[in-house]
Amino acid sequence: MTTQQLYNQIQKKQSFLCIGLDTDMERIPKHLLTAEDPIFEFNKAIIAATHHLAVAYKPNTAFYEAHGLKGWQSLEKTINYLNEKHPDIFTIADAKRGDIGNTSAMYAKAFLQDMDFDSVTVAPYMGSDSVSPFLAVKDKFTILLALTSNAGAFDFQTQKVDDVELYKKVLTISQTWENSENLMYVVGATKADYFEAIRKIVPNNFLLVPGVGAQGGSLEDVCKYGMNDKVGLLINSSRGIIYAGNDENFAKAAQQEALKMQQQMAQLLRNN
Amino acid sequence: MTTQQLYNQIQKKQSFLCIGLDTDMERIPKHLLTAEDPIFEFNKAIIAATHHLAVAYKPNTAFYEAHGLKGWQSLEKTINYLNEKHPDIFTIADAKRGDIGNTSAMYAKAFLQDMDFDSVTVAPYMGSDSVSPFLAVKDKFTILLALTSNAGAFDFQTQKVDDVELYKKVLTISQTWENSENLMYVVGATKADYFEAIRKIVPNNFLLVPGVGAQGGSLEDVCKYGMNDKVGLLINSSRGIIYAGNDENFAKAAQQEALKMQQQMAQLLRNN
Repeated sequence: MTTQQLYNQIQKKQSFLCIGLDTDMERIPKHLLTAEDPIFEFNKAIIAATHHLAVAYKPNTAFYEAHGLKGWQSLEKTINYLNEKHPDIFTIADAKRGDIGNTSAMYAKAFLQDMDFDSVTVAPYMGSDSVSPFLAVKDKFTILLALTSNAGAFDFQTQKVDDVELYKKVLTISQTWENSENLMYVVGATKADYFEAIRKIVPNNFLLVPGVGAQGGSLEDVCKYGMNDKVGLLINSSRGIIYAGNDENFAKAAQQEALKMQQQMAQLLRNN
Repeated sequence: MTTQQLYNQIQKKQSFLCIGLDTDMERIPKHLLTAEDPIFEFNKAIIAATHHLAVAYKPNTAFYEAHGLKGWQSLEKTINYLNEKHPDIFTIADAKRGDIGNTSAMYAKAFLQDMDFDSVTVAPYMGSDSVSPFLAVKDKFTILLALTSNAGAFDFQTQKVDDVELYKKVLTISQTWENSENLMYVVGATKADYFEAIRKIVPNNFLLVPGVGAQGGSLEDVCKYGMNDKVGLLINSSRGIIYAGNDENFAKAAQQEALKMQQQMAQLLRNN
C-alpha cells in the first residue's frame, strides 16, 4: 500500500482509526470459547462490525505467541482474512522486532512478505542495519518506536543525548537512512505536548499513536499538534473498543465505540 | 535454572560455549530437505553431536518465524527436545522482545513458561515496565541488550547520555530494577576493550557474547576483560559451528568446530 492509498481511505471513511487486535482469551466473551479458534472468531466479528469505521488493524503478536502454534495460526488466519476481505485496509504487525541485519531480514520476510502485512513495528536500539531489511521492502512500511506511551518511556527515550532527547535522535538519524520514506513512527498520545517538536523533525511521516483513551491521551491535543496536510496520524485504540462489551453483543458494542471515535475524527478532519 | 547450576555445568564441561541455532533452510545440507521437518532434524543432529561441548543453545526466533506455522512448530520441537534430553543445558530464546507491561507479560508467558526456555533476550528501549514481567519469573533469566555486535550499535547505544554512553546507562539503570539478579546482558565480542568498564558496572551478571569468530571478536580478549569469579560469560557461536560442513557429515564438522572452541575455553578457565 502507498501513503496516497492510505490517505484516500482516510478521506473516504473520514476516519484515521486503527483498531488494536490485542485479543486475550481471558477477556473475550465466554460463548466464543467453545469455537474451534476463539481468537479468530472474535477478530472476525470485530472486523465485520468495524471495518467501515477504521482504516487500519493492528494485531499485537504477543497475544498470539502466548498460545504457541495455535495462536500463530490465529494470527495467520486473521491477516489472511483482512487481506482477502478488506484489501484496502492498512495492516500492522505490532511485533516490535529488531536484530542484526541477516536476522532482521528473516522477520521482514515473515511479516511483510509471507504474511503480507502492510507494515511492522520495529525497535530502534540496534541501529540502522537492524532496520534496513524492513525498509528495503517496496510499498511496505516500517513503524519505528520513537516515544512510547508507557511509563518506561522516561527511562531511556527521554534521556538527553548531546542535549537532545534520545527519541528525537532516533527520529533525526532514521530520516537519513535509505528508503526513509517508508518510515512511520510510534508516538504515544500520553505525550501530546511533544508532537509539535516531533512534527518539526518528521513533517511528512505517518505517526502511529497508541494511548488515547484507556491510557489517558487526548485525541484533540494529538490532532492539534500532530496532524499534517495528509493527516499523518493513525490513532490506535485496542481495549477501549474490542472489550467494550463482553456478552453476545460484543461486536455491536465495539462498533458503537468505534463509531464514537470515527465521529470525533470526522469533526477533526473538517476542522483541519 | 540457577546461576550456580549454570556454573556447575561450565565447570563440568570446561566450556562456556553457547551454540546459536540460527537454522536457515537455505544453508542446511540438501539431503535434509526431504525430511518432514528439516529444521528440527538439523537441530537434533547438531545438539546430539555437540551437547557435551556446549552449556547453552540459543535458537533465534526470526529463523523459525520466517517459516510461519511450520517454523514455530520446529522451534517448539527443538525446545521440547532440549528440555527432555538435556535438562541441564541452559536454553535461550533469542527473541529480542519488549513491549508495554501487559504485553511483555504475554511474551514472558510464551517463552519462559509455556515453552519453558531458561531465558529470553529483551530490548531495553521501552524501559523498566517493558522488562519487569520477564524479570518476575522465578529461576528464569532476562538477557537485556546492552552493546550489540553489529555496526548499528554505534547509532544509538554508544551515544552519550549525560556524559555516559547509552549502553552504560542501560546497565546502570537496569541494576536498580526489582529482581535484577535475574538479569544477564548481551555484549558483543567485537567490542572487547569495552568489557573492563562494563564489569565495573555489572560485576556479577552473566554476559552473553555474540560476535566471536565470523564477526571478528577475540575470545582471549573477551575473557581477559570480561570473566569474573563465576566465569560470567556465555560465548555464542552460530554460523561458525552449525554450518562448518554442509554435506552428510555436517554434524561431525560442527562437533569439530565446537571442540576447538571448548579446548580454548578449557585453557582459558585453567588460567583464570
